[in-house]
Amino acid sequence: MKKTAEDNAWIKRVIPELAAPSLGDNTADVDRLVKGLRQRLKAVDVRVDFSLVKRLSRDLRAHDYCVEGVVYRDGDCWRLIDVFDGKEPKGVYGLSLDLGSSTLVLRLVDLTRGETLDEISFNNPQIEIGSDILTRIHFAGREGGLIKLQALVLDEINHQIGNLVEENSVTRKSIVGMTVAGNTTMTHLFLGLDPHWLCREPYIPVVNRPDLVNAREVGLGINPEAPVLVFPNVGSYFGGDLIAGILASKMTEREDVSFLVDVGTNAEVVIGNRDWLMACAGAAGPALEGGVADMGMMAAPGVIDTVRIDPDTAAFTIGTIPAREGSAATEARGPLGICGSGLIDLVSQLFLAGMIDLMGKFVPDRCGERLTEMDGISHLNVVPANASGTGKPLTLSQIDIDGLIRSKAAMYTILTTISKTVNIAFDDIGRFFVAGTFGSYINPRSAINIGMIPDLPLSTYVSLGNTSLTGATMALLGVDAQKSLFHIRDQITYLELNVNQEFMNLFSAAKFLPHTDRSLFPSVKTWGGDGAVPAGEKIGG
Amino acid sequence: MKKTAEDNAWIKRVIPELAAPSLGDNTADVDRLVKGLRQRLKAVDVRVDFSLVKRLSRDLRAHDYCVEGVVYRDGDCWRLIDVFDGKEPKGVYGLSLDLGSSTLVLRLVDLTRGETLDEISFNNPQIEIGSDILTRIHFAGREGGLIKLQALVLDEINHQIGNLVEENSVTRKSIVGMTVAGNTTMTHLFLGLDPHWLCREPYIPVVNRPDLVNAREVGLGINPEAPVLVFPNVGSYFGGDLIAGILASKMTEREDVSFLVDVGTNAEVVIGNRDWLMACAGAAGPALEGGVADMGMMAAPGVIDTVRIDPDTAAFTIGTIPAREGSAATEARGPLGICGSGLIDLVSQLFLAGMIDLMGKFVPDRCGERLTEMDGISHLNVVPANASGTGKPLTLSQIDIDGLIRSKAAMYTILTTISKTVNIAFDDIGRFFVAGTFGSYINPRSAINIGMIPDLPLSTYVSLGNTSLTGATMALLGVDAQKSLFHIRDQITYLELNVNQEFMNLFSAAKFLPHTDRSLFPSVKTWGGDGAVPAGEKIGG
Repeated sequence: MKKTAEDNAWIKRVIPELAAPSLGDNTADVDRLVKGLRQRLKAVDVRVDFSLVKRLSRDLRAHDYCVEGVVYRDGDCWRLIDVFDGKEPKGVYGLSLDLGSSTLVLRLVDLTRGETLDEISFNNPQIEIGSDILTRIHFAGREGGLIKLQALVLDEINHQIGNLVEENSVTRKSIVGMTVAGNTTMTHLFLGLDPHWLCREPYIPVVNRPDLVNAREVGLGINPEAPVLVFPNVGSYFGGDLIAGILASKMTEREDVSFLVDVGTNAEVVIGNRDWLMACAGAAGPALEGGVADMGMMAAPGVIDTVRIDPDTAAFTIGTIPAREGSAATEARGPLGICGSGLIDLVSQLFLAGMIDLMGKFVPDRCGERLTEMDGISHLNVVPANASGTGKPLTLSQIDIDGLIRSKAAMYTILTTISKTVNIAFDDIGRFFVAGTFGSYINPRSAINIGMIPDLPLSTYVSLGNTSLTGATMALLGVDAQKSLFHIRDQITYLELNVNQEFMNLFSAAKFLPHTDRSLFPSVKTWGGDGAVPAGEKIGG
Repeated sequence: MKKTAEDNAWIKRVIPELAAPSLGDNTADVDRLVKGLRQRLKAVDVRVDFSLVKRLSRDLRAHDYCVEGVVYRDGDCWRLIDVFDGKEPKGVYGLSLDLGSSTLVLRLVDLTRGETLDEISFNNPQIEIGSDILTRIHFAGREGGLIKLQALVLDEINHQIGNLVEENSVTRKSIVGMTVAGNTTMTHLFLGLDPHWLCREPYIPVVNRPDLVNAREVGLGINPEAPVLVFPNVGSYFGGDLIAGILASKMTEREDVSFLVDVGTNAEVVIGNRDWLMACAGAAGPALEGGVADMGMMAAPGVIDTVRIDPDTAAFTIGTIPAREGSAATEARGPLGICGSGLIDLVSQLFLAGMIDLMGKFVPDRCGERLTEMDGISHLNVVPANASGTGKPLTLSQIDIDGLIRSKAAMYTILTTISKTVNIAFDDIGRFFVAGTFGSYINPRSAINIGMIPDLPLSTYVSLGNTSLTGATMALLGVDAQKSLFHIRDQITYLELNVNQEFMNLFSAAKFLPHTDRSLFPSVKTWGGDGAVPAGEKIGG
């Protein structure tokens, strides 16, 4: 028998050898199948859910006892998901879901080949209740609120499963497993668990390590017995999406120490290796998500993601995220706004070109005509009205820069604090993984230039893209996925950030470009070399 | 802490030590409880069903994290049933059910004290579909038939649970477990499993060893998470009621070899000890149930259960089953009929008094005026019309006697065959357990006199009463009940009775009173000593 991707997987197909019943062997149908599965799986404990028991005799006889059983591992036992025709086995499939608070990505995976068949991305319909998580938590507390929030996301997922099923000519019944990675609130709402205490001191989830649950129990339109693996969380602020990131980075397989950073409204940071993990999360400020700047936007086609400024001519070269193949092109109309990574690129380039100083303030001499003032606040004209996709000028204000600097300072301070806690110097970091959509566009060179991340060799930085989805897919195809996730989860020591005097001192020192201690960023070369604070000199604190 | 009956039980209460959540310990509610339960139970794997996960935060907080958890053992893990107030723990209860095809007996048990609180007996409402099992199996094959059969019995059980709950001032929620012993068809119908193949060659049940299933999944009106332990079966003809009998007899704890006999429409026989068990079932004829004789009835108040005949005067002394306390007395009206054990007593006494001969034929000289002829068939007047409770004479016909003799011969032949198979002489039998209502009224002396059971010292015979109920109750209070039942079940070797020439020879020889080989029954002393076949002489074959 050919080895396939599923041979060691936690969800797999087995074709048991079943003798037809006879007077000499009157073993019951369920017990006959269980015995055959036990032999194939070399397992002691094989369980058949009661709802399957009710129809198994019919199914076994319909296929003359030649069936393919699809099973999943649940702790020390294996559980039957379904039986299919054993003479002409068809494919079995799984779904992995990135359960984002704004965007969901659903991937259809061929479990036998271990290959992605299709992927679909769609908005979280809970946005109609509120774009931020707190609003949704409060809404869940209203009469019927939790049920509504769960129904919104489940209905949409089921609808999108319908699309995937149709477009890929597979049946819902053949989808025999699902993995779900999301933050703690999103997974609570997905499971219909009350998120009330997540946002109230001392911030207690209903569950950290959810058991596998059936699609039927959740209300998912796939095989009713399909196991749904919802990623565990460490607490309110450190969710399954981060566990997925750790899994996707494979940092727990490495001997050297890695950083994993996921930046959204919060900066979530993990440091560790195969022996230990420490994590913390802090408010890095929404500036990095591009949510606050005047022209800030979520990363999307037509949004500025790269900026180059010629230090001699001060000419701007602006790059935007290309439209997806087949969709109506928006590039031709000009940029629509700027995303977080574009903002970092822009501020980095402004700094290198001497157009802002080490405190992030505009240098009028260098900015020239691009600098205007509106309501007493300096604005830099990045894209003029006639070149922009909105018909209005895209500008960067002093306030936008100040916001970004606070965010980058927070990030750098968090990185410094957590590495000091575990007594690891930045130089000893082997890999610096950047997760999330943000991470897939960010230019590490620019992030170093503004002092957001440590001045390490660029090869240290690895962008992982959508680690929630990658991690969820890895778990779907894994050997003993839940055990691995629990292991990762249980290894994590969560560092509660104390915003004390020491933290504030570090933060103040990091609020300069790139830092008050210039020796920390030897690779950053600014225009004319001015604006640099002499190495070792401290400001503030 | 005082040791209670439940300390080692598979369903038990534990009060975990739970610290209230704090910023220093933000473990989720479910995980906090699981951790506390694991400590108390010294168990690795403690599971919380998804439906409980949904409401656990509320319950824990309602009791300030001081809760009593009720758990049950499921293989290697423990599962939570519910949480209750830990400051003022109340009682928890269980139900054991004898799921008979005609009568159900439901017992309410205090799980903490291990004591029966109440017991209620009621008709199986499936009788309205058909009194025999085959009719019900065929009805189950009709559109909606299975659902109707299940609903009939479940509705009645739930109704009777309602009565128990009310009369004993307990709540349905506090009933946290149930055990069910019945024959294979009855348990299939109880669980809503299609019995279609039970009565068709090669007689395959849906399941032999059902997993524990929740009350919610079955549709029982007790705590929804309460485990329901349905006794396993060996096959269509050897059900959970017999496993309950083996458990109740404790024969598997004995070094010496025991017989266990349960007589209904079938004679079910088990032989074995702590090391091995062999079982067989054969049609012993309904005569033993009292179902066929003209005056035959099920054992009930007012029914004849004992008969003494003075061999000198031929005077009959007739005993009936007394009315239950508090119920309207029927004794005064005279006997209503005769039950199986009464029939055995009667025929035995007729034989000892010389009123029937060794072939069971009436001896007119000895019967005198009691003997009459109707439609060419001899009838013995047992109770004259004026003394009977029906106003009509109660008579015993030659056909009734012939039927009983066939049944007793079948029983003796089965006992002979199975003991020959395992090469155990009757003399080596340490205990002869008789199960069932039949067994609780039978007089072993009479059964020996007619050659139905071996001529062993009377102290060998032990009547066990309702072993389904006793076994179910023992399982409810047991240490690892399901494992014990599976162990008993798996130890049983089922002997398929071949009705071959050898069997027929044994059967023919047993169709005499007490037997053609009189040396097998040295203790049987008949009136005048006549009628006995000389020792060693064989008839038939």
